[in-house]
Amino acid sequence: MSQTDVPRIDGRTPDQLRPVSFERGWSKHAEGSVLVSFGDTKVFCTASFTEGVPRWRKGSGQGWVTAEYSMLPRSTNTRGDREAVRGRIGGRTHEISRLIGRSLRAVVDLKALGENTIVLDCDVLQADGGTRTAAVTGAYTALADAVAWAQERKLIKGRTQPLTGGVSAVSVGIIDGVPMLDLCYEEDVRAETDMNVVCTDDGRFVEVQGTAEGVPFTRAELDGLLDLAVKGCAQLDGAQRLALAGE
Amino acid sequence: MSQTDVPRIDGRTPDQLRPVSFERGWSKHAEGSVLVSFGDTKVFCTASFTEGVPRWRKGSGQGWVTAEYSMLPRSTNTRGDREAVRGRIGGRTHEISRLIGRSLRAVVDLKALGENTIVLDCDVLQADGGTRTAAVTGAYTALADAVAWAQERKLIKGRTQPLTGGVSAVSVGIIDGVPMLDLCYEEDVRAETDMNVVCTDDGRFVEVQGTAEGVPFTRAELDGLLDLAVKGCAQLDGAQRLALAGE
Amino acid sequence: MSQTDVPRIDGRTPDQLRPVSFERGWSKHAEGSVLVSFGDTKVFCTASFTEGVPRWRKGSGQGWVTAEYSMLPRSTNTRGDREAVRGRIGGRTHEISRLIGRSLRAVVDLKALGENTIVLDCDVLQADGGTRTAAVTGAYTALADAVAWAQERKLIKGRTQPLTGGVSAVSVGIIDGVPMLDLCYEEDVRAETDMNVVCTDDGRFVEVQGTAEGVPFTRAELDGLLDLAVKGCAQLDGAQRLALAGE
Amino acid sequence: MSQTDVPRIDGRTPDQLRPVSFERGWSKHAEGSVLVSFGDTKVFCTASFTEGVPRWRKGSGQGWVTAEYSMLPRSTNTRGDREAVRGRIGGRTHEISRLIGRSLRAVVDLKALGENTIVLDCDVLQADGGTRTAAVTGAYTALADAVAWAQERKLIKGRTQPLTGGVSAVSVGIIDGVPMLDLCYEEDVRAETDMNVVCTDDGRFVEVQGTAEGVPFTRAELDGLLDLAVKGCAQLDGAQRLALAGE
Amino acid sequence: MSQTDVPRIDGRTPDQLRPVSFERGWSKHAEGSVLVSFGDTKVFCTASFTEGVPRWRKGSGQGWVTAEYSMLPRSTNTRGDREAVRGRIGGRTHEISRLIGRSLRAVVDLKALGENTIVLDCDVLQADGGTRTAAVTGAYTALADAVAWAQERKLIKGRTQPLTGGVSAVSVGIIDGVPMLDLCYEEDVRAETDMNVVCTDDGRFVEVQGTAEGVPFTRAELDGLLDLAVKGCAQLDGAQRLALAGE
Amino acid sequence: MSQTDVPRIDGRTPDQLRPVSFERGWSKHAEGSVLVSFGDTKVFCTASFTEGVPRWRKGSGQGWVTAEYSMLPRSTNTRGDREAVRGRIGGRTHEISRLIGRSLRAVVDLKALGENTIVLDCDVLQADGGTRTAAVTGAYTALADAVAWAQERKLIKGRTQPLTGGVSAVSVGIIDGVPMLDLCYEEDVRAETDMNVVCTDDGRFVEVQGTAEGVPFTRAELDGLLDLAVKGCAQLDGAQRLALAGE
Repeated sequence: MSQTDVPRIDGRTPDQLRPVSFERGWSKHAEGSVLVSFGDTKVFCTASFTEGVPRWRKGSGQGWVTAEYSMLPRSTNTRGDREAVRGRIGGRTHEISRLIGRSLRAVVDLKALGENTIVLDCDVLQADGGTRTAAVTGAYTALADAVAWAQERKLIKGRTQPLTGGVSAVSVGIIDGVPMLDLCYEEDVRAETDMNVVCTDDGRFVEVQGTAEGVPFTRAELDGLLDLAVKGCAQLDGAQRLALAGE
Repeated sequence: MSQTDVPRIDGRTPDQLRPVSFERGWSKHAEGSVLVSFGDTKVFCTASFTEGVPRWRKGSGQGWVTAEYSMLPRSTNTRGDREAVRGRIGGRTHEISRLIGRSLRAVVDLKALGENTIVLDCDVLQADGGTRTAAVTGAYTALADAVAWAQERKLIKGRTQPLTGGVSAVSVGIIDGVPMLDLCYEEDVRAETDMNVVCTDDGRFVEVQGTAEGVPFTRAELDGLLDLAVKGCAQLDGAQRLALAGE
Repeated sequence: MSQTDVPRIDGRTPDQLRPVSFERGWSKHAEGSVLVSFGDTKVFCTASFTEGVPRWRKGSGQGWVTAEYSMLPRSTNTRGDREAVRGRIGGRTHEISRLIGRSLRAVVDLKALGENTIVLDCDVLQADGGTRTAAVTGAYTALADAVAWAQERKLIKGRTQPLTGGVSAVSVGIIDGVPMLDLCYEEDVRAETDMNVVCTDDGRFVEVQGTAEGVPFTRAELDGLLDLAVKGCAQLDGAQRLALAGE
Repeated sequence: MSQTDVPRIDGRTPDQLRPVSFERGWSKHAEGSVLVSFGDTKVFCTASFTEGVPRWRKGSGQGWVTAEYSMLPRSTNTRGDREAVRGRIGGRTHEISRLIGRSLRAVVDLKALGENTIVLDCDVLQADGGTRTAAVTGAYTALADAVAWAQERKLIKGRTQPLTGGVSAVSVGIIDGVPMLDLCYEEDVRAETDMNVVCTDDGRFVEVQGTAEGVPFTRAELDGLLDLAVKGCAQLDGAQRLALAGE
Repeated sequence: MSQTDVPRIDGRTPDQLRPVSFERGWSKHAEGSVLVSFGDTKVFCTASFTEGVPRWRKGSGQGWVTAEYSMLPRSTNTRGDREAVRGRIGGRTHEISRLIGRSLRAVVDLKALGENTIVLDCDVLQADGGTRTAAVTGAYTALADAVAWAQERKLIKGRTQPLTGGVSAVSVGIIDGVPMLDLCYEEDVRAETDMNVVCTDDGRFVEVQGTAEGVPFTRAELDGLLDLAVKGCAQLDGAQRLALAGE
Repeated sequence: MSQTDVPRIDGRTPDQLRPVSFERGWSKHAEGSVLVSFGDTKVFCTASFTEGVPRWRKGSGQGWVTAEYSMLPRSTNTRGDREAVRGRIGGRTHEISRLIGRSLRAVVDLKALGENTIVLDCDVLQADGGTRTAAVTGAYTALADAVAWAQERKLIKGRTQPLTGGVSAVSVGIIDGVPMLDLCYEEDVRAETDMNVVCTDDGRFVEVQGTAEGVPFTRAELDGLLDLAVKGCAQLDGAQRLALAGE
């Protein structure tokens, strides 16, 4: 069976993204905010700008960008316990929060940001696969808005642009032997290999996280997935640009 | 100065609600869901229906309805810490979660519900005063949808309607000596007395929680606030009915 | 059946308080202390005075008054787990601690208190209904002693009296359709509506918290309960005065 | 200077206990209860009897006795944080709870107790040194009352007496080179060596815990302290018997 | 400068592993154990075999393999706080524990394991870069020993070999533009890109986790790193085989 | 049967220690470190020296020495849960950490140490009884090395030697009526009385902790145990000296 014949659950071709949208300015309080959708996955991202940095960074002349990811209890098909109620944050949540933070810092010149802090909150309102990649992609948009907000108010003082580029992320996976782009939940569950890739807008890699869910994958399969991911990120990057140009 | 001359921050008369809206079906996963807005206050309410009840209630023949309230970190003007990150739920969160649960149980016939559980999650996406009253009002709508969903699927078996009536809630307060309905955040901060009232759709009371923020209040002031609240709840009840009839 | 015929479990008339007592000076360490009894409900209240205020209040010229409520594990009929052992404070405990703190602050001029802190600890040694109202009423007595202690030592410097009035609290409820004052545990369990009212010594309200346990209550019922509560608080206020004059 | 000339802060001779009292029946709920005083140290001890044992002990035919110790925040001269508020139990609290439990189990025939559980709660209402020894001594009294209570109700079925003897505890220490009995707080702070000794009523040892606070102690000093402790426990044992015979 | 001229801190060539050793049987209690060293990085790995599986897996006919990673507080150059003392496990610890568990499960036939559980504990005694890759590599050795132990005792009953292959892991990174294998701590700090790769003994991938620490990396760089990692894992696989054959 | 005829599980005479060894310098990072073995009990002790003291001690001119004890999950025969995973430190761990800290401080002149802090981490790699006594004994060795390290670097400035003597610890217990030295796990389980004794190198006591596991013990038994412990500590002290002289 040729690759393009594989019937995806929602009719997409293997190399097709789900419909992507960015609703900017979703919060009246946050300095930057967006409701990002990758198909039915919806993540609400806010960027909170504050002057000053955490204690351990004071006097360094550098800013700080960090992120927190969370899922609403009923963002999933079956209700999950709140981490606040359990009294501890789970490993998966920690892992994704750290991934988002690292991904954004890869395109931030922390010196140019000055001693300011931007916290990205990525709360999953509805989950259908790819929440972490939607979160990275949306968080960048909110971050860009917050940086622009701070520049307008001269809170970021230097002339150097703090954002050195754009960043976006997408999941890829192998299902029944076929590499596919931007997996929805049902595909994600069935995937033999699952990879999340974060790329800059010039096609370089910030993060590559591939995991064999069942059988280990070969170098050739890895290469196929990377090709697909780079293509997907380029499209997401275009959508981000359009969204950011929109207002 | 007569009461109607008081200039409210947003041009409302003292006895006027903010624009109220209910967007039902906001979640594809939850058995009932609504995005409720009281002005700029937006609360996302989901109702999760599951068969069975908590261990302590097994074999009682009765169901259970409970609620959890939470604010997204940047739902407010200044970012707050996540309770999951702090590792404990604050007193205010607990208090409001319990209030919502009690308010809903006041209009649920738990016997008619059968041994089923409905959990209401009320997550504040944007806060501008009155988040708990919006949460109660929205949660009822989501609850009604979840009950209907379960009845259609014969998961609730009895013939008795589990919902014995509607319930809604509104805040009232005294500002510069004038009782006002449905306070926004700025009014809430300035109010000498702050009261949250939960009413059934036949005008009776489920909860009355009045607090003197500064000076204690008189019986006459209390009576004035209650009059206003009853009026406000009646209007909210109408809006709820419209929304529930809408689909 | 007329209201006065209702046989209360302990022979009281519906509008009668349980025997109330205040044993002041129960702690040799605390600046103010009292063992307050409302019938078999016994709450040990200490007021701890310290110079200085929490960090967030420094330099404001204002003091701070706060409270913590707790029940000993075997204060109740069946032993409950210690919250310290469970590692988290329950919602009810939080709620009552906050209520006590707010109630006391309503009669404290924080400016006149100066940058000093008073912490009220209310530990329930034996519970038989009305622990929160006994706690508010006892805590005020301990607070008054601590304020006097600090004034004697010139730790409170201003001439303005920091206490602007007295405060006391009582529970009321409707049982078999009859409004009753100061419910003991057995009555509390049976009450259709349960209300806690905190009043100042001039008969104004600081807190009104009414909850329909089963059926919602009407405005007329609410009015009846408020009448009863005001009467009860006036009597408690008298008992407090006597106790405070006692030494 | 001869030993008897040492002026103790409260006029006692080195080998003299503080006034000891046991107020039994201090709780209307608990199966056994006592307010024990060693001078100004007051500990409220309750014994909670429940049928059944923890899961890990089911089917063993043996009962379980355990204890929890806690200090009220203002039982001390300076207010301490509540452990429930800090969210964790401190090492000292754990240590003392375990000591009390072990001390009591040393005189309980768990087989004769049958599959029943007795939990001792020892809450320090006022601390002036020796809270753990007062707690052990009071807890035994409460335990004896709870056992008698259960025997009357035939909840303990066997003919063997579950209590194999009495147990009491006292602190001893060396101050300015002189061994002293039952240290009050001020003495405890000054002691070079501090020892807590738990004895059965036939003069054998259950626990011996000696700690050099400053300089290590010699075998001769250790012997002197043990002599004193044995004498003190014998007196406490007498007081316990009197108290238990009292009703 | 050609790649082989780069002076590595410890004199290695870019594609050279540090000295690797496996000391099996380091614990007298554990069913499998090894002290693995990658240069100065030392990780103590134990495999604990127990019959039965966690509740959520009962009746599935399948076993379970999981891992916990931790660093001793002074395994690093500067002492870190214990996670048990802080009361919560950090994100990095969670992340690595999950990585180890997934890596091992990739080579375990859980059906063949039967309803048995193997827990791998990987405690870092001394850290010098690459602790997670040493942990994966050592944990596999301990796992293999525990499986053999259980097979000898007929605790694993099936005829199918539960281990479908070997697994090992290595870090690679780009320093001053040169891809290097098995980074020590000082190199890790300086690396522009850091990648951890987990391979099976037939050269396929289980995990690929690449992170741009500073500048994003190109596809060519990624390819170079993967080449190096595959080579390193093949060598580690050889060392493992030797160690496992050793007894 | 005479005392020397008692067959000990491992062939020792009642007053014989297990083979003791100290491997110093086991960590390349810590200022002092030792792997101490008492038979099969192996504890890894590191001493971390840092300039400065905790906030509550600043400006006192005195240093601080503290200890943390922990068991690896599979140091025991059956795997135990990690305390970091459970989110709280158990009572036993707390108790032993405090014991080690007190024992070491008994031989440290904190003034001579200056405002410096030494933290001892004692992690049990393999447990076979006596982990706390091995930990005290090993920790002293690591402490001595850390003090020497700091003196060489002039980080401890005074001329007074901060260590006023050596300290070691051993367990003793009564088994089948015979007092025995340095119990291994199997003996520990069978012991009627269990005592841990910490002595200085001049034969004085720092800690004496005796517990009747089953029947209470007499004064004569206590005396016998103390004799044995003093003898054991003297031997341990000799072994420590040899080890410390070794390099």
